[in-house]
Amino acid sequence: MTSLRLAPGGTGSLVEQLKQEIERRVRNGVLRPGDRLPSARGLAGELGIHRGTVAAAYSELAEDGILASHVGRGTFVTEEAARILPAASPEGGTFRWRDHFAGFEPPPRVAEIETALARSGEPGMISFVRNIPDEALFPAEAFRKSLNEVLREQGGALLSYAAPEGHDVFLEFVREYLARERGVGMAEDQLLIVNGSQQAMDLIARTFLRPGDTVLVEEPSYSGALDLFRGHGARFVSVPVDAEGILVEEMEPVLARERPKLIYLMPTFQNPTGGCLSPARRHEVVRLSARYEVPVVEDDFDGELWFDEPPPPPLKSIPGSEGVLYIGTPSKMLFPGLRIGWIAAEAPVVRRLSRVRRVADLSGSPLLQAALARFASTGALLRHMKMVRRAYGERLEKLLEALARDMPPGITWTTPRGGLSLLVSLPEGLDSGDLLRDAAEEGVLFTPGQMFFVNDGARHLRLSFGSVPTEKVGEGAKRLARAVRRALGRGPRRTRSRGGLSLPTV
Amino acid sequence: MTSLRLAPGGTGSLVEQLKQEIERRVRNGVLRPGDRLPSARGLAGELGIHRGTVAAAYSELAEDGILASHVGRGTFVTEEAARILPAASPEGGTFRWRDHFAGFEPPPRVAEIETALARSGEPGMISFVRNIPDEALFPAEAFRKSLNEVLREQGGALLSYAAPEGHDVFLEFVREYLARERGVGMAEDQLLIVNGSQQAMDLIARTFLRPGDTVLVEEPSYSGALDLFRGHGARFVSVPVDAEGILVEEMEPVLARERPKLIYLMPTFQNPTGGCLSPARRHEVVRLSARYEVPVVEDDFDGELWFDEPPPPPLKSIPGSEGVLYIGTPSKMLFPGLRIGWIAAEAPVVRRLSRVRRVADLSGSPLLQAALARFASTGALLRHMKMVRRAYGERLEKLLEALARDMPPGITWTTPRGGLSLLVSLPEGLDSGDLLRDAAEEGVLFTPGQMFFVNDGARHLRLSFGSVPTEKVGEGAKRLARAVRRALGRGPRRTRSRGGLSLPTV
Repeated sequence: MTSLRLAPGGTGSLVEQLKQEIERRVRNGVLRPGDRLPSARGLAGELGIHRGTVAAAYSELAEDGILASHVGRGTFVTEEAARILPAASPEGGTFRWRDHFAGFEPPPRVAEIETALARSGEPGMISFVRNIPDEALFPAEAFRKSLNEVLREQGGALLSYAAPEGHDVFLEFVREYLARERGVGMAEDQLLIVNGSQQAMDLIARTFLRPGDTVLVEEPSYSGALDLFRGHGARFVSVPVDAEGILVEEMEPVLARERPKLIYLMPTFQNPTGGCLSPARRHEVVRLSARYEVPVVEDDFDGELWFDEPPPPPLKSIPGSEGVLYIGTPSKMLFPGLRIGWIAAEAPVVRRLSRVRRVADLSGSPLLQAALARFASTGALLRHMKMVRRAYGERLEKLLEALARDMPPGITWTTPRGGLSLLVSLPEGLDSGDLLRDAAEEGVLFTPGQMFFVNDGARHLRLSFGSVPTEKVGEGAKRLARAVRRALGRGPRRTRSRGGLSLPTV
Repeated sequence: MTSLRLAPGGTGSLVEQLKQEIERRVRNGVLRPGDRLPSARGLAGELGIHRGTVAAAYSELAEDGILASHVGRGTFVTEEAARILPAASPEGGTFRWRDHFAGFEPPPRVAEIETALARSGEPGMISFVRNIPDEALFPAEAFRKSLNEVLREQGGALLSYAAPEGHDVFLEFVREYLARERGVGMAEDQLLIVNGSQQAMDLIARTFLRPGDTVLVEEPSYSGALDLFRGHGARFVSVPVDAEGILVEEMEPVLARERPKLIYLMPTFQNPTGGCLSPARRHEVVRLSARYEVPVVEDDFDGELWFDEPPPPPLKSIPGSEGVLYIGTPSKMLFPGLRIGWIAAEAPVVRRLSRVRRVADLSGSPLLQAALARFASTGALLRHMKMVRRAYGERLEKLLEALARDMPPGITWTTPRGGLSLLVSLPEGLDSGDLLRDAAEEGVLFTPGQMFFVNDGARHLRLSFGSVPTEKVGEGAKRLARAVRRALGRGPRRTRSRGGLSLPTV
């Protein structure tokens, strides 16, 4: 018979657990009438429990008519067992699925985030939770026209598989766009089109990381990247950021000592602080990557969203940046629903990533790629970027004004010049996970800082202003200030220990 | 300094390799003017080579002005070195990328397949290589109308992120479609929308497999699945198929002995044979899955493409099939370019897969999901399926007729009643990898059998007739018969050893 196991977190006495386990196996047909069970002594040894426990379970099941003992022959499943314990229904759930989950470990669900996301839709609520652009600004009608044009012109070809590297017209658009708009000159075999920047990072992690490998990240960093690298079994070393980005002078000793397999950076308008790496530091990062031969993942997810002047060119535009794996996407500058992103890297890296991508999901949609290339070719993409720079810049300005006006002393925040978010820091003793409850009562939501920090982060919180209508930004900041004052009024509490966010009970 | 390595496959003498390695490090700034090199004795010990080799390399580099030795102090990089060996350009490629690739191992490229795919587009060539539907049959115009309708009605909301589980209207369509058309009744929390069936399999592999785990597969099976499971470090146990699908009576001892973590099956019109699992065997597979508590991945990629009568309902429709992870897709019955697929499984499995999917690529495109749901709601999907069943059925009929008429004796083939492919078997001594060259000269292409077999397969080849125009199917078979006769005329050759397909030289 299939060897019996007892679930590590099983409830009830051992006798009860063993009985249930045997009954389960009768229900799902693993144990069938006439099957012989192991001896009480043998099973007890296998499970590391007392022989009397097994004997008691057998005896109680015999009383129920499920088992029968025959002196000198052993213990058997009775003919009646199948009637007493009918087969499990498909809904019944006899598989212990948890025992089967063995591979990639997804991040735990975080109760605070789930609550914040769920409550973001409540009437009157002002939510700074999601780091997304505002769908009210999406040029749906202009994009619809581009979709129609390419589908009318090319028909079925756009409904078949794309090449794993990407649709050729779209690849050419990205090549030209990166060279003209971002100063990143790449050949066509140095580009790969993927399903958004999250897939870009996942393909890179699958290609470069083994469990136990080290990744150097900014402190704080993007939670989706931390979750992903953690899922791949990575450990982190983190280097703090200031307004000019990661402290490069602290990177070299870490590189020398820890030999990380990857460096993950958002040089431009990083998530969550909105900080921007200075030109001098960009050059130093490129030098360090080459000197220590450590690839840098440059996540340029929102580099287009500058509000006063363009940011310095990406790392990938700097001579000697062959170790830089550049990621771009239209998700923030345009809209995210196309699930499109791109990787610019040396040809051997692109070839390898492309082969991993082929087994991951074959390819992206050629229709959406062709439509986006057409949309851009009409000039609509550049026009849209001009418009959203103004719109998000205005929201940021209003947010900064309101924070300055309403926040009590001792609260600080970053002052980005682009992007969709900023980071607020609370005084010692306040915990942003706790504050979220006060804030929700005031009618405002944010993302607790712990999501973004490798080491603690409880004193911080992220405000993502991109999807908050301009006229509500100030009111949102005012409500947050009220919540902070309430929390301060209660006096400092013990800061929760590292990783203090709670897991949902379901 | 970074410890020096010599590439395993390096060319040239050891002295030459060592010189190049040091020069590379000067070029990319890892070694800089004034840096001291290890002693010749120390480095020789580290690399396991003769001390004289290191001394010779140092001495030649000193002659070139790159290094300088100072008695009693050691060997240093000169100030001139940086000028003599200028920094590598971004194109120069000083990273040894192969050393960085450490994670997921993609399948090797196979020269025969690349050649067959590349030559498929040659004028006059008849290609049975790709197992895809015919884009000339795609209802591009009707789909364009559906796209327009939903985008006009819902605008920006369809251009934002979808829920990771899928767009709600599309989830409801899939739920209703599976219940009505396939007899698979699932609740909404038992469904997950993904990027095509390849991503479905990848998510399942990431969730259920660790390197070294065993997967039970049909012999032969789908090459894309074998590649994927191999990439995850799985080993295979295989059970042969006949016209009624996998030999279930051979499964039980394998399950008892090998304890696989997953069973991967294509019960309906499997790739490559086109065989269809009988109702009795379907029930036995479900019983075995429950009895041994091994999940079954049911890849139902083309179950809709029947030509005379509907196939038996999927495993997932059978009571007690809670262990079945069902995969469906519109890619074959409609078109593949939307990159859409679905998984139907117990809710705990769907929850877990959804969390893995979230870090893999967040979500699919809500626009394409909404458009497909609309397209189906007009009745266009069912009408299209009626049309393609006739079209592909006719192609299969013509192919079977031509094979019967033209093939020399000793050649056999499967006779599917649905799907897009069949398997041809050659007499002992012929190798389909070799035959492909003869066939290409005759103007016809196919996929060699080794791609689909765990154990050899050299005597087999797959003909995918879906994308070959009806009027060319017969001519294609005639050309293949000519190639076979040519190969037979040369007399039997030694069959190449297992895995005999060759890797491309580039």
